[in-house]
Formats: sequence, C-alpha cells, structure tokens
Amino acid sequence: MVGLKVFGQPASTEVSRVLTCLFEKNLEFQLVRIDTFKKEHKIPEFLQLQDPSGQVTFREGDLTLIYSRKIIRHLCDKYADQGNKKLYGNGSLEKASIEQWLQAEAQNFWPPSAKLVFHLAFAKPLGKEPNMSIIEENEKRLSDILDVYDQRLGKNAFLAGDEFTLADLSHLPNTHYLVSRCERGKKLFTERKNVARWVNDITNRESWKKVTEMQNEHPAPLEK
Amino acid sequence: MVGLKVFGQPASTEVSRVLTCLFEKNLEFQLVRIDTFKKEHKIPEFLQLQDPSGQVTFREGDLTLIYSRKIIRHLCDKYADQGNKKLYGNGSLEKASIEQWLQAEAQNFWPPSAKLVFHLAFAKPLGKEPNMSIIEENEKRLSDILDVYDQRLGKNAFLAGDEFTLADLSHLPNTHYLVSRCERGKKLFTERKNVARWVNDITNRESWKKVTEMQNEHPAPLEK
Repeated sequence: MVGLKVFGQPASTEVSRVLTCLFEKNLEFQLVRIDTFKKEHKIPEFLQLQDPSGQVTFREGDLTLIYSRKIIRHLCDKYADQGNKKLYGNGSLEKASIEQWLQAEAQNFWPPSAKLVFHLAFAKPLGKEPNMSIIEENEKRLSDILDVYDQRLGKNAFLAGDEFTLADLSHLPNTHYLVSRCERGKKLFTERKNVARWVNDITNRESWKKVTEMQNEHPAPLEK
Repeated sequence: MVGLKVFGQPASTEVSRVLTCLFEKNLEFQLVRIDTFKKEHKIPEFLQLQDPSGQVTFREGDLTLIYSRKIIRHLCDKYADQGNKKLYGNGSLEKASIEQWLQAEAQNFWPPSAKLVFHLAFAKPLGKEPNMSIIEENEKRLSDILDVYDQRLGKNAFLAGDEFTLADLSHLPNTHYLVSRCERGKKLFTERKNVARWVNDITNRESWKKVTEMQNEHPAPLEK
C-alpha cells in the first residue's frame, strides 16, 4: 500500500475533517506538521489565514488533493472495504442521499458557520474586532438552516438516514468550534432538540474524540 | 536568507539540542514533525528507536546535516552575529575551551547519561525491564564525571568560563530528562553543590524553557 500523507495542522477545520475520515476508515497515515518559529515564538498559521478554515494537502503516491471534501470522498471510494464501510453508503440510493447532505454542508451550512466560528471564537484572540452585523446576519442564516436540520433529525438518527456518514462527519469541525468555544454559538445547536441530540452523537464518535485530543495538543492560537 | 528546517520530534534529545541553539541564536526556522497513525493510535517514534536519543535532520538550502552537535556548531559559525554571540566564543582560546567541554559531553557525559535516561526514565513506559546492573554501572561512571564537573563549576559559573556556551547547552537534553523524570537521576545532580547550581541556571534559560514547553505539547510516549 502506498503511504497516505496529510499535511496541515489538526486545529484547521479542513484538516480535522480529513483526519476524522481516516480514523473512521482505520487507515494508517502520516501527519506532517510544519511550524514556523521566529524569535522563540511560534507563528500561528491562522494569523496568515484570517479565517479558521486552514488548509489541507493529501498525498497518496502521485496523487495530490487539496480539498477536504474531495479527500474524504476519495478515501471512502478507494478504501470501501476498510474500517467504517457505511460512511459513504452502499448503492446509488444511499450515496445520493449522503451527497445531498454533503452538499448542503458545503453550500449552506459551511458559509455562515465559518463566519460565526471566526467572529465568535477566533477574532478576539487574534486581536481583531468581532463584527456584530456579520454575527447577527449569519446567526439568522444558520438558524434557518438548523431549523431544516431539526426537522430532518426528528425523523432520522443522522442526516442521510440511520447511519453516521460523511454527511454528518463533514459538519463536525465547525459545529465543534461553535459548540465548544462560544455560548452564543452553542445555543444555536442546543436550543433545537433533535439537532442537540445529533451533535451529542456525532461529537462522541471515537474518531472525532481522537481529533479533538490532537487539537488540544496543537491548539489554535487563541489558547496561547 | 535560505530557510532553516529541522525534521524531528522535540522530545528527542538530538532535536531538543538543536532547537535550543536556534532559540539562543534568535533564528527563524521551520520545525517539520511527522507522526504515523495506525488504527487511531499514534505510533511513538521512540518505540522504533530503543533509546531516547531520537534523530534529527537539519536542512538549509542544499546543505543537510544529521548530527546535533555538528548542527549547533554550524549555526554558531554561520550566524556568528545573530542572537547570543557568546555561544561558541570569540577568538580561538575561548573556542578551544568550549570545544574541550563539548567533546567531554559527547564522549564522557553522553554515553552513561543516555543509558540512565533510557533505563531510569524510558524503559518501563516502553514496556521494557530496566536493567539494574546497567543502571549501577553507569551511575558510577556518571558520578565520577560529575565530580570533575563539580570542581570545575566551583571555579567558573559555566563549563567553559563565565558565559553560557554550546558546552553547557549540549548537556541540557539528557540532564533535563534525568533531573525531571527520576529521583535517582536527579540525585546525581542535586547532591553536588556546584553542579546543582549550574543545572538550575542552564535549565532556566528562556531558550530551554521554550523547548520543554514544546516537549510537553508533543510528549514522549511515557506520558501517554
């Protein structure tokens, strides 16, 4: 087997999405972290990025991929028979449902949740002023989306049905930062009964707990 | 300036020796860490090494160096005018004295102290049985060496004279593991008055405190 390599910091939401998938699939991999030090101080990668999405690079032999959602689909397609075999569904119907919610995450959930992660959890520690009108606007947008999720999760345990899939996994990084780092972010999830139960289920996956441990070992700058 | 890169884990004594020198010299550098994960568990590099010396690779453009003491001499020669300018002395007399104690470290201090670090601090957490006869033999050897150090440090603040130099720096990694991780190792240093004062001085350097912080963030397997 060609070695799988991930380049990036676990604190990045892009990286943590990929790590969670690798742990779910029980795949052996190498994580390559590069930290820059200047006059005894570590330069936080996040400072250069201005938003908490970070970056990830995946390499497998000659193949290089740079988008987390592309990487997790690739891992599930290529290693269908390893680890969690239900992650990307079996058969085209299941896959279609997972795809629908994966795309909802990328197109609907991600944009407002990323804005909120930045302005509610990261801006102040980075010495930036949180923008209240951006917060209010995106809180409204995310609330509307989570209302739809709450309905959906009243009928099914997980977004694409009865199993934890890439659709749920893909929501973990931003959800975790909002729920664990700011009361205002947390409230959006906990005040919706079915969403709250779902958040509890997905954040307690062994794979995700392992990733948050790694994040705690290599924290984003706000904890310094 | 060509970028300086260090490849390795801060828990390794070879790596920590190089990092301390980079911090003393106030040089900007990148630390590249590679961790292998297998079925959710990180594979400790140390398990493959059988001893706590670890490995370090240094790159600067086309130059690659792999021995920590060679790397720290190179950094002081090449960046003589940056950061701590006294680290490798000024003039041939000072340098000769530093070289003498650098070589004492590599040839006399290192062999018994590395054996003790492994058997007193690392063996048990790695599931190996500490070898008592190796411990006793090397305790005796290190004691004899530290008696000489104690005399020397009764006359000078540091090994090569009145300034902290590479000679002192080079002793930090093994000294720190012995002093901080096992009572039996600590005693060798604290029961000698001048050595005890010297250990206190060198382990409180800002450069070394920064390195131990990094070691705590990326601990050797015994802390897991």
